[in-house]
Amino acid sequence: MTDQEEPNPLLICTMPFRVRYAECDPMGYLHHAHYWVYFEEVRTELLRRQGFVYRDLEAAGVLFVVHKLTCTFLRPVRYDDIVNVECRVERITHTRVDHSYAVLRGPEVCTRATSTLACVGRDGKPMVMPKELWPKP
Amino acid sequence: MTDQEEPNPLLICTMPFRVRYAECDPMGYLHHAHYWVYFEEVRTELLRRQGFVYRDLEAAGVLFVVHKLTCTFLRPVRYDDIVNVECRVERITHTRVDHSYAVLRGPEVCTRATSTLACVGRDGKPMVMPKELWPKP
Amino acid sequence: MTDQEEPNPLLICTMPFRVRYAECDPMGYLHHAHYWVYFEEVRTELLRRQGFVYRDLEAAGVLFVVHKLTCTFLRPVRYDDIVNVECRVERITHTRVDHSYAVLRGPEVCTRATSTLACVGRDGKPMVMPKELWPKP
Amino acid sequence: MTDQEEPNPLLICTMPFRVRYAECDPMGYLHHAHYWVYFEEVRTELLRRQGFVYRDLEAAGVLFVVHKLTCTFLRPVRYDDIVNVECRVERITHTRVDHSYAVLRGPEVCTRATSTLACVGRDGKPMVMPKELWPKP
Repeated sequence: MTDQEEPNPLLICTMPFRVRYAECDPMGYLHHAHYWVYFEEVRTELLRRQGFVYRDLEAAGVLFVVHKLTCTFLRPVRYDDIVNVECRVERITHTRVDHSYAVLRGPEVCTRATSTLACVGRDGKPMVMPKELWPKP
Repeated sequence: MTDQEEPNPLLICTMPFRVRYAECDPMGYLHHAHYWVYFEEVRTELLRRQGFVYRDLEAAGVLFVVHKLTCTFLRPVRYDDIVNVECRVERITHTRVDHSYAVLRGPEVCTRATSTLACVGRDGKPMVMPKELWPKP
Repeated sequence: MTDQEEPNPLLICTMPFRVRYAECDPMGYLHHAHYWVYFEEVRTELLRRQGFVYRDLEAAGVLFVVHKLTCTFLRPVRYDDIVNVECRVERITHTRVDHSYAVLRGPEVCTRATSTLACVGRDGKPMVMPKELWPKP
Repeated sequence: MTDQEEPNPLLICTMPFRVRYAECDPMGYLHHAHYWVYFEEVRTELLRRQGFVYRDLEAAGVLFVVHKLTCTFLRPVRYDDIVNVECRVERITHTRVDHSYAVLRGPEVCTRATSTLACVGRDGKPMVMPKELWPKP
């Protein structure tokens, strides 16, 4: 996203999540492992809005595995909080996709994260994505 | 197990678990959803000691799905507790297996549970278990 | 609910869930442990619609712990399925609440479950619920 | 750890984990969210071997929250695999601890990760660690 004034709406997606009791730890905070579950859901929804259902891709032998993750936790998120999780596609090649994420509670940014996914076949070996998933020139 | 004096050692299995931080809820208790994960692990270990690796069965198209569950929580289990989880085969037919479970902390019984698993094929349809899994006459 | 024609709308609650990737197991099915997380969410939402926020109750020292669970799995639920989870209050005393649950995918009943919760204080000891939570005569 | 020939054995800890069924996703791989649970367990065990029980620290109002995470997945880990998870303390200040992690399956490095934890009080505000946790000069 080099031009934040005119983002391509297909390449941003925001979803609300109410933090579940079972996702919180003895501190009463959303446990850091569960953020990745939220990120995965928003990433999948972004793909859905582009016209691709990840379940169908996987059934067709096109899998995406997580290669790299980073996350910075700025403010804790608590049980029963409603947060908006934003996902952006930052970069697509023919074999990989980079996403960035933000967890927002009202105007507060609570968390920032990034991921790199790699396209693999059912054998786990890297493959070139189907053409329809390639970035539009 | 009608005769507790001479249990068949293949049909009982006990494994220790240290309760993980991420498995505990804001009360600091092992969340009730996670007990099923422990039960599944002990049930799989019991099968392994009988000579069957569930991963291999599944690769061969022999799947076991949970059909029924019951659980009674008598005492809470807390973060960092070490509990022993016991699993017994209570009944085997050619299509189903009943197990019972107990969660023990030292001499205290904290939890009792039961499950019925059904054997299904990769299509999810009920199937007769491979003969080697049948109860010995 | 003895009279299904005129259910008390405060005592039934239904919420949709899209099954998350991380909640599914190697069979591609919603893992049986995660159903309890869904049930807990709907139960909490039912309480919210009655005017009680479980987070606030817990902050005030009124905790509800699960005492008993039963569940029957009739049809598997798969990754990316959208299911409706229904929760009903079946019985309330001054110390316990019984709920029943159903997981529906369109017209199909996939799962039926029940739970008994007990009210406890921060010390884990049983206590009488605050009067405002008592069943209306 | 500047000198790998003579590591301080208190500052490295390795624990084996058998990958649980419920931790695996529809690809049959350990889901990326669950790695953090393993890392947390080894980090806690390392602390225990230094003489500190995290449960007791937390009861005394000394909490550690995750501030930053990075992870690179080099090879997938599968259901029922036994992996060794290694954790090292890389740097301690009076308010933070940096750890690094590796997931090993036999001689293969499957995953590398890092975390920064911050010491906070029960109010979630940063605090200086108790002196006994400070790095030995």
